Amino acid sequence: MSQIKNIGVYTSGGDSPGMNAAIRAVVRTALYHDIQVTGIRRGYEGMINGEYEPMNRKSVSNIIQRGGTILKSARSDEFRTPEGRKLAYFQLKKNKVDALVAIGGEGTFTGAKLLGEEYDIPIIGLPGTIDNDLVGTDFTIGYDTAINTVINAVDKIRDTAESHDRLFIVEVMGRDSGLIALRSGIASGAEAVLIPESTGDLNALFHRLEHGRKDKSSRIVIVAEGDQEGGAFEVGRLVKEKFPNYDTRVSILGHIQRGGRPTCMDRVLASRVGYAAVEALKDGHRAEMIGVIHGEISYTPFEQAIKKNLQLNSNMLKIVEILSL
Amino acid sequence: MSQIKNIGVYTSGGDSPGMNAAIRAVVRTALYHDIQVTGIRRGYEGMINGEYEPMNRKSVSNIIQRGGTILKSARSDEFRTPEGRKLAYFQLKKNKVDALVAIGGEGTFTGAKLLGEEYDIPIIGLPGTIDNDLVGTDFTIGYDTAINTVINAVDKIRDTAESHDRLFIVEVMGRDSGLIALRSGIASGAEAVLIPESTGDLNALFHRLEHGRKDKSSRIVIVAEGDQEGGAFEVGRLVKEKFPNYDTRVSILGHIQRGGRPTCMDRVLASRVGYAAVEALKDGHRAEMIGVIHGEISYTPFEQAIKKNLQLNSNMLKIVEILSL
Amino acid sequence: MSQIKNIGVYTSGGDSPGMNAAIRAVVRTALYHDIQVTGIRRGYEGMINGEYEPMNRKSVSNIIQRGGTILKSARSDEFRTPEGRKLAYFQLKKNKVDALVAIGGEGTFTGAKLLGEEYDIPIIGLPGTIDNDLVGTDFTIGYDTAINTVINAVDKIRDTAESHDRLFIVEVMGRDSGLIALRSGIASGAEAVLIPESTGDLNALFHRLEHGRKDKSSRIVIVAEGDQEGGAFEVGRLVKEKFPNYDTRVSILGHIQRGGRPTCMDRVLASRVGYAAVEALKDGHRAEMIGVIHGEISYTPFEQAIKKNLQLNSNMLKIVEILSL
Amino acid sequence: MSQIKNIGVYTSGGDSPGMNAAIRAVVRTALYHDIQVTGIRRGYEGMINGEYEPMNRKSVSNIIQRGGTILKSARSDEFRTPEGRKLAYFQLKKNKVDALVAIGGEGTFTGAKLLGEEYDIPIIGLPGTIDNDLVGTDFTIGYDTAINTVINAVDKIRDTAESHDRLFIVEVMGRDSGLIALRSGIASGAEAVLIPESTGDLNALFHRLEHGRKDKSSRIVIVAEGDQEGGAFEVGRLVKEKFPNYDTRVSILGHIQRGGRPTCMDRVLASRVGYAAVEALKDGHRAEMIGVIHGEISYTPFEQAIKKNLQLNSNMLKIVEILSL
Repeated sequence: MSQIKNIGVYTSGGDSPGMNAAIRAVVRTALYHDIQVTGIRRGYEGMINGEYEPMNRKSVSNIIQRGGTILKSARSDEFRTPEGRKLAYFQLKKNKVDALVAIGGEGTFTGAKLLGEEYDIPIIGLPGTIDNDLVGTDFTIGYDTAINTVINAVDKIRDTAESHDRLFIVEVMGRDSGLIALRSGIASGAEAVLIPESTGDLNALFHRLEHGRKDKSSRIVIVAEGDQEGGAFEVGRLVKEKFPNYDTRVSILGHIQRGGRPTCMDRVLASRVGYAAVEALKDGHRAEMIGVIHGEISYTPFEQAIKKNLQLNSNMLKIVEILSL
Repeated sequence: MSQIKNIGVYTSGGDSPGMNAAIRAVVRTALYHDIQVTGIRRGYEGMINGEYEPMNRKSVSNIIQRGGTILKSARSDEFRTPEGRKLAYFQLKKNKVDALVAIGGEGTFTGAKLLGEEYDIPIIGLPGTIDNDLVGTDFTIGYDTAINTVINAVDKIRDTAESHDRLFIVEVMGRDSGLIALRSGIASGAEAVLIPESTGDLNALFHRLEHGRKDKSSRIVIVAEGDQEGGAFEVGRLVKEKFPNYDTRVSILGHIQRGGRPTCMDRVLASRVGYAAVEALKDGHRAEMIGVIHGEISYTPFEQAIKKNLQLNSNMLKIVEILSL
Repeated sequence: MSQIKNIGVYTSGGDSPGMNAAIRAVVRTALYHDIQVTGIRRGYEGMINGEYEPMNRKSVSNIIQRGGTILKSARSDEFRTPEGRKLAYFQLKKNKVDALVAIGGEGTFTGAKLLGEEYDIPIIGLPGTIDNDLVGTDFTIGYDTAINTVINAVDKIRDTAESHDRLFIVEVMGRDSGLIALRSGIASGAEAVLIPESTGDLNALFHRLEHGRKDKSSRIVIVAEGDQEGGAFEVGRLVKEKFPNYDTRVSILGHIQRGGRPTCMDRVLASRVGYAAVEALKDGHRAEMIGVIHGEISYTPFEQAIKKNLQLNSNMLKIVEILSL
Repeated sequence: MSQIKNIGVYTSGGDSPGMNAAIRAVVRTALYHDIQVTGIRRGYEGMINGEYEPMNRKSVSNIIQRGGTILKSARSDEFRTPEGRKLAYFQLKKNKVDALVAIGGEGTFTGAKLLGEEYDIPIIGLPGTIDNDLVGTDFTIGYDTAINTVINAVDKIRDTAESHDRLFIVEVMGRDSGLIALRSGIASGAEAVLIPESTGDLNALFHRLEHGRKDKSSRIVIVAEGDQEGGAFEVGRLVKEKFPNYDTRVSILGHIQRGGRPTCMDRVLASRVGYAAVEALKDGHRAEMIGVIHGEISYTPFEQAIKKNLQLNSNMLKIVEILSL
């Protein structure tokens, strides 16, 4: 293994709060080891199109607290083809980039895995996604910020729900997973949480609305966008139909969940794995995602990391129910 | 005029942040003058149904910072009828309430006006609505909080818009008025603001997307829900149709705009008018809304206050345009 | 009057949230009129030392929501001397700057006034200070953000004060003025507000602690740093001495009051006056501060604007007292 | 073991955000199992003085999002004596409380341990302290909120530090521990973190200020209140003395760190352990603290839990240094 001289760093897929903190950590740690850093803009698209820029300590000043990604992100169909990856590798060579740090989720690592298999370039991945659905880390960068954004929004909705004795159906992100819904549901004192991983939630809710406590002045139901029932509008329609006497409203939280200043936890996580990514590249690691498991840095091969982790703590669903009784 | 002994206070119509601060001010000021206070729950509905409770200093402890209304709010069809108002007055007499402070908007004061005309009871109104659409006050209680909630949400959306070079269509509240849209549009650096009060906004936006600056990495368009074009979904549809190359997304902010901890401005406004309401009743005022105009307490007869004030500072629309160029 | 071709913009004195929004408005409005803009860094110090940079539309992208000032600020002793101002003017000429927009407070405008009297250069001032102590505008840029920062902090302090039945003495900014203390005092439900403008506050507080309501579970006293009694530590010492049975704590809010994302009100104000500043220069105005009075743009000669406006609404002190009874 | 019929719940020691969420979980879970709940106010003081009140589902409505503790907290010297504990037990018997859930920190569990040893009453502890210094749980309730409060404050301070090229010494809580300082230091991009657990920090900072990068426009140093150097004022004095050319300021964050709406993480943690506490009492556990270790509920005997856990991840100190280079 020859020594690494120039690390390329990029963000790819849906952006998540804390990506900037991760970029900063990669840049500063590399420079500390006298390794150059090249920022690659717009993920794999920019990698192919030659959007490269050298980064120095100043490039990442005063960004640790900012949402989004200063390197921008994009989808790239071209990179899914062998020709696209060939072009990408050609550009990397041309720009003298000899190692990569990829910040993103499942799709990002799938691309990184292929590139690393087809060409001789070490790549380390960092888990940047609000969905928290990756194997190999307890939490992904952005998840904690997203669930806090959700509960802050629901706290506001609760204020008006309480004032008017209303039932709110609130949709949160999570196409394949109820991880955002479940934690934010517990934390916002939700009546029920409807998620893709479990069925029968809606009937349980109906049962409760019919037979449960009548003296509650507000009720919040959290629905993951990927729920089988079809999202908050559809759930709202069904509830209104069956319970016309409830004053039922629907709210879709949408893209506010992707932005905002990262929480302390997300900044610390991003800083730790960004630091560890450079150390790992120096130590000869490749084709691995770096996460934090029970407080310790962990290394997971891309092929395992991209298997979505949709495991739920089933006890938590029970807690939602009992605590809102 | 006999001396007032027991003031009833209630909130009615859509709730707004700062209503609790207003209730607190009414209760504390009345007690200071040795006047009793009766809380009437659920607005006119509770006034008819007898939801009365005596309030003391402790009743309003630690609520100045809370969104919503501890007295709750509701719509009442019954109160729109003379029979309903007769019942209400009967209940007021029975509970020895001899004056009222009504916190709400246009509908609240319309009801108060009728009650005050039909029965001998002095009523003072306080402007509690996020819409800022009342004559007789520069700002209504809750407006400042609502526009801050909007810009905080748009700041988050901006993060992700910047990361992905996207155009976002964001819908804010305002069925008849663009007042929320206009200020939040300026403050969030929006590309354009589409409001009921002006026409041709959409064509101006189209023109700009076609001929304007091409190097912007994000664009935010704020749409008032009452805009002629039909809300954000419809505007989004039209933009996507005409500009398929823009990555366009729609976000409806919804009910988060009604809740949340009130801002300093809303708390001060609510405290001042709540205090002034009791002083006004003592001084023999009746059938007036109390507001603040250029820093001074003002008194406006209900019949004028309920004429919606939808006047926009037209210069502001120009500012939105020029500052986002 | 020859036509203006290049406007220099700078921030000076203590920074305040919203200054960036004002810079953005000046730059974008000038470019709209095909006037160049030069950013001058570090206020008068940079003006003398030649810290000039051309600004374009991109220079002010995505800054409307940021606290602080991208142009930085500094104190300059040199500029207080005729020689310093001569050097400054020489640099302005050299950089072809033929008009100025100065964003700051009393000291900033005093400097601008002198420069404009000694040399032929039109200068417009914008009120950027958290202190709200200028004649010629209802509010200064940054004041609204500062008082919201205060009440958010006091809301947190209230939580722990309530839990432990404590009395907190909280010091806020305001060396010469109680304007921050007074509004934030009303809005945070303070027991008392001690400010430079009034005397006897402390005795009133003592009287109340001795004879007032005993069932309160928390008490907050807001002290302006410039109060005669000597700040929160001294007030705390006196309270502890006289009322050893109260569990009294002191908190100095300090510099958090200067930073943070500006509120909607501050962003709108900054955008409006920034826009108006360029229009005013075009129309031949000079040596004036631009403010907003009762919703309308106003123009005040520097010599009047720098007379500190420390007028308090005396009724407000009474409201603090009565509402916390 | 006879069946539990009435659980007493109390909060003791310094309050922390999330205590209310824990109380809510205990109450709702107990009622679900048809166990009565008695709220004991003001910790051990109220336990002795008879401040007991029955709690129902409504008692804990709408509190999950509130800082502080609705049951209040207090110190009790009397409870440290055998006579005090005897009185407490007498009151518990009198109020038919046959099991306890104690929410607090080291002192709280020390008291609980003694009471449980001297009298036959099962007690379960929940880790409620912002200090995160307990054995038996990865995080304590309130820690995550506190470190987020710190970074939000430092973000504001950073704004003004950047504008004026200043060095800020910021003091955070932590009498015996640098745990708050360390994480918030990483997350706020601090230059250095001075904590009780390590020595030589100050010299390292001096070395860096003398020989390090000169082009930084702001510098933040986080000091734990219990640091050997003597807190932020003393550190500030030393820095000013040695580096008079730096514009150095000191800020003490103080009690804002104890309050505020709990974060999602704190609410989920509090809900989970509150739920588990009742289940544990039902299952015969006693004299144990319940925590969450790597996502799973854990049980730790009081005598172990009260041994302060001040272990730091030493790698983190290195990360602070390298990432701020």
